[in-house]
Amino acid sequence: MGNLQLYSVIVTRSREMKQKLSPVHFNQPMVIEAPVVLTICADFNRTSTWARCRNAEPGYDNFLSFINAATDALLFTQTLCNLMDEEGLGYCYLGTTVYQPQQIIDLLHLPRLTFPIATLTVGWPDEEPALSDRLPAESFVHEERYNDYLASDIDRFYNEKEQLEENLNFVRINHKETLAQVFTDIRYTRKDNEAMSTTLLDALKKQGFLG
Amino acid sequence: MGNLQLYSVIVTRSREMKQKLSPVHFNQPMVIEAPVVLTICADFNRTSTWARCRNAEPGYDNFLSFINAATDALLFTQTLCNLMDEEGLGYCYLGTTVYQPQQIIDLLHLPRLTFPIATLTVGWPDEEPALSDRLPAESFVHEERYNDYLASDIDRFYNEKEQLEENLNFVRINHKETLAQVFTDIRYTRKDNEAMSTTLLDALKKQGFLG
Repeated sequence: MGNLQLYSVIVTRSREMKQKLSPVHFNQPMVIEAPVVLTICADFNRTSTWARCRNAEPGYDNFLSFINAATDALLFTQTLCNLMDEEGLGYCYLGTTVYQPQQIIDLLHLPRLTFPIATLTVGWPDEEPALSDRLPAESFVHEERYNDYLASDIDRFYNEKEQLEENLNFVRINHKETLAQVFTDIRYTRKDNEAMSTTLLDALKKQGFLG
Repeated sequence: MGNLQLYSVIVTRSREMKQKLSPVHFNQPMVIEAPVVLTICADFNRTSTWARCRNAEPGYDNFLSFINAATDALLFTQTLCNLMDEEGLGYCYLGTTVYQPQQIIDLLHLPRLTFPIATLTVGWPDEEPALSDRLPAESFVHEERYNDYLASDIDRFYNEKEQLEENLNFVRINHKETLAQVFTDIRYTRKDNEAMSTTLLDALKKQGFLG
């Protein structure tokens, strides 16, 4: 957005802070084990401070501005990831960042008009894991307009993913009938999603992004 | 999020559809002139359809799920941009996508639980524009906790940007006192931001992402 660079990065190296951040990320072990944890934030605080220092009245305490800053922060995050790939660095993207944002805000002293949007744990890798499976491009590319999915499309696009030994095993150990049920009933349930939607909106309000 | 690939890409090549999309993007000429326009969407529709086809009950009609899908779509978008850079393709990222989303939703027939989040115009470039200016890394990197900005920090971090001939000229032609005022008073005003926050939230609700 106008090359305003609406992001900030908080670098965590101290063991003490990693231990505090760990439960917020569901105690995934890389938060403590990786040498560096990066919390990338949507940031309209710096730009608003700049404006006030320059006799200008910022008007960025609203939802559109959150989306603009979060977008900028995520584009920055992914380019950082791609550059780290080129350097041979390893990282893990933690989706847990938006699950309990208020705790991160408090721990990292994030001021009004900033918001944590992504976390990367970073280090030199001691393994070369296989690439993740991907749906075929035709499953998500639509020509001219969105072509909604028929049951036969779903079968065609998801068959390979569902038949991977890793995913068949995932279904077995979770005692489910289908891979989709592992997602809907265990990993990302309606109950959790709705509860975390509320805490996310509450934190957005507290940080000044919902008026 | 669980490698669900929560995005879709709508490819626009037809002149007719480009002409319809053009006003939504404030008639920026590249929408019509570029051979291809890509509208990248947050998409929980495909995953929810997959779930229903597999005897699973999806619970992704909520705000957290929108943020998860928008995140996934933006990370995809930026890797696509970085790969296009490597191929020598040129593109322009249109921030206008979230300004009038309902029009895009209607034009591209985007179903419930999808949402347009980024647009790229793509083509083979006939110029090599200079890189955009960037703030120094120390302006957005914080060690261990967020260190809020003093007026002296702002002076130090923004001086180079403000003194660029291009930006000095930008202030002059807009008859403003400072570069920041060009942003707050002309390009991204409180009035516009607040109005577009409302239309954005309305469209999110209509697409099923606000319960």
